[in-house]
Amino acid sequence: MTRTHDHFLDASGVLLDRLRIDAPLVQCVTNTVTTNFVANAVLAAGASPAMVDIPGEAGLFAGAAGAVLINVGTPAAEQRAAMLEAARAASAAATPWVLDPVAVGALPIRTGLVRELLALRPAVVRGNASEIRALAGVGSGARGVDTVDGVDAARGAAIEIARAHGAVVAVSGAVDLVTDGASAVRIANGTELFTRITGAGCALGAITAAFTAVGDDRLSAAVAACLVYAVAGELAAERTGAPGSFAVALLDALSAVDATALIERARLS
Amino acid sequence: MTRTHDHFLDASGVLLDRLRIDAPLVQCVTNTVTTNFVANAVLAAGASPAMVDIPGEAGLFAGAAGAVLINVGTPAAEQRAAMLEAARAASAAATPWVLDPVAVGALPIRTGLVRELLALRPAVVRGNASEIRALAGVGSGARGVDTVDGVDAARGAAIEIARAHGAVVAVSGAVDLVTDGASAVRIANGTELFTRITGAGCALGAITAAFTAVGDDRLSAAVAACLVYAVAGELAAERTGAPGSFAVALLDALSAVDATALIERARLS
Amino acid sequence: MTRTHDHFLDASGVLLDRLRIDAPLVQCVTNTVTTNFVANAVLAAGASPAMVDIPGEAGLFAGAAGAVLINVGTPAAEQRAAMLEAARAASAAATPWVLDPVAVGALPIRTGLVRELLALRPAVVRGNASEIRALAGVGSGARGVDTVDGVDAARGAAIEIARAHGAVVAVSGAVDLVTDGASAVRIANGTELFTRITGAGCALGAITAAFTAVGDDRLSAAVAACLVYAVAGELAAERTGAPGSFAVALLDALSAVDATALIERARLS
Repeated sequence: MTRTHDHFLDASGVLLDRLRIDAPLVQCVTNTVTTNFVANAVLAAGASPAMVDIPGEAGLFAGAAGAVLINVGTPAAEQRAAMLEAARAASAAATPWVLDPVAVGALPIRTGLVRELLALRPAVVRGNASEIRALAGVGSGARGVDTVDGVDAARGAAIEIARAHGAVVAVSGAVDLVTDGASAVRIANGTELFTRITGAGCALGAITAAFTAVGDDRLSAAVAACLVYAVAGELAAERTGAPGSFAVALLDALSAVDATALIERARLS
Repeated sequence: MTRTHDHFLDASGVLLDRLRIDAPLVQCVTNTVTTNFVANAVLAAGASPAMVDIPGEAGLFAGAAGAVLINVGTPAAEQRAAMLEAARAASAAATPWVLDPVAVGALPIRTGLVRELLALRPAVVRGNASEIRALAGVGSGARGVDTVDGVDAARGAAIEIARAHGAVVAVSGAVDLVTDGASAVRIANGTELFTRITGAGCALGAITAAFTAVGDDRLSAAVAACLVYAVAGELAAERTGAPGSFAVALLDALSAVDATALIERARLS
Repeated sequence: MTRTHDHFLDASGVLLDRLRIDAPLVQCVTNTVTTNFVANAVLAAGASPAMVDIPGEAGLFAGAAGAVLINVGTPAAEQRAAMLEAARAASAAATPWVLDPVAVGALPIRTGLVRELLALRPAVVRGNASEIRALAGVGSGARGVDTVDGVDAARGAAIEIARAHGAVVAVSGAVDLVTDGASAVRIANGTELFTRITGAGCALGAITAAFTAVGDDRLSAAVAACLVYAVAGELAAERTGAPGSFAVALLDALSAVDATALIERARLS
């Protein structure tokens, strides 16, 4: 609660360095739309992705992975079973795991699934404002994966979820908001181009998982992930304004971004 | 039947502008090979993709979406059920939907599935010449997703399907042919590079769905989709002749193409 | 056994030319993470990919395809059934097929599956050193898909598998090793950037399948695939050092690489 923005900025640089040295295994049980982009983003950032997502393997792997991402974007039946298996195993092994509740509230099967997953104690919940509001039982749910609410509209919901579930909650938007229920950090970096490619949120969820694998303090880890990702987005946006090129440049920037770029660009509050 | 080429060109510009203003939700129940490319293409063109493809959610979403794409490229059992659910719901709600009958005629499970789907009244059927011929019961079926027949070879088949099912039929090839069974429009734009990347046809199917969400006249909507996509391909081909770069440049061009480019380049007949 | 390096280099150029002329159908039953990249790589190299991977179609297609790739990276239940169906049909029809045993030994379901598949006589087994060692019953299995052992550590395992199963074994690493159990060829081309994108190994597996479709001598075909792919990687690495751009440049290079580039660059031993 008394930590300064300098604390989070310093921690972000340290965690980014550690990510590249440790290259932790990040298991992703994630949607079929963006799995390639997510794997490449995790790899570019410095971690080692492993998309192990079938029952009988997902739980076993989650016990050994550095961190786990569970993204409910295309929750086919077999993958739903793998998600629950992975979340239970991660929880039992104290492996940190991140929940990305794509379109929760708007669609029934994933909404029920997300409730079950939430009870298995994710370290971080990452979503857009509509999703975080829907998760807290307010708002009309997401419009697809686009947010229709601003990040400030989800501040109360984020704090409520953080306190109720002992999780850090990261709300993505033009400004990101990260809270553990006590402190709240805003990251005002980024680019509008994130909204013009598919999977920008999915990749951030996976990178957040990667950071929880190298930092015990989950608030710092989630802030670092949002900051590193948003600054990489800025670097990429300086190379191109078009969506196809941006997705490529973002992967390049995720491998290039370093502590110096964070110091020069961070806009934390 | 009496509409001129100027009519279709004007309509294409109007619909493209409307697509960017309305950003309609386009639900895609599509193959796992190209789903990321398809989502990015829809987004680049100006619409909002949502890859909702499981039973229990697909039908619900189809009732609310602006349009639906159903592409049978990798028809696993659970997705087949979702396709039928989505098509039934779209039909019941008068949501326009597009059928992309990938490799119909060449493989048995999708061939049966496509017959069922065709009975649920798609607004547009989009395929290559081999697929359209196979759908009409002529020809030997597709060689994978490559066409082995020219577009003219499928003219009769396209008209027959259009009349029998009340659908617009779009045949993709070096020259595209679009017909509602009465009129037929040829679009002679495009680039050979479309055949050197995977998913070029899939993305066109999804963009066709996007256009049906903003235009009640389905013939004009399908012509607009083919024209916008083919002109974007030309713009991309002017930047690169290599396949990896072309796929990226195509997404860039889909976000850049506008009514002026259509006017300058359109070759309709 | 008495073949020289010049023999393999000459054969690689001849097979590459034949690949572009014949454009053989290469069926891929492969993981959902990299399927798009794999399809584009096969297409860029000159062959025609077809991702037919459901029971009821996979076996039928395997009987008619030029070659088949089976990659067990994300082996969901329905796809496992399709893999066995495709391998049985390929074996029965004498269609050459390639086994890519992703993470075998490290995870139980795919390990059992790979044992079943291996009994169905693949033409080529392609993996990293950890996977090939695990397959031979030595070593601790793969760390995700990253190799933790050098290629030389897998030489004995590769020869053993080749002799026991009558297959060519290709071990991928900084230097590739290809053996039929009698001869062994090392390919010292390539780039470290292959380890910084997802799917580099998967794409090589599929391209290896493509080469077995145009060359009866499986050792020459597997060497040609490794050489063409590694040289394309070098060409791409000369254009960029960043991972997102490299994946794009690799596809471009796969379409540009020719016999002349092979002659100039090959480092066979």
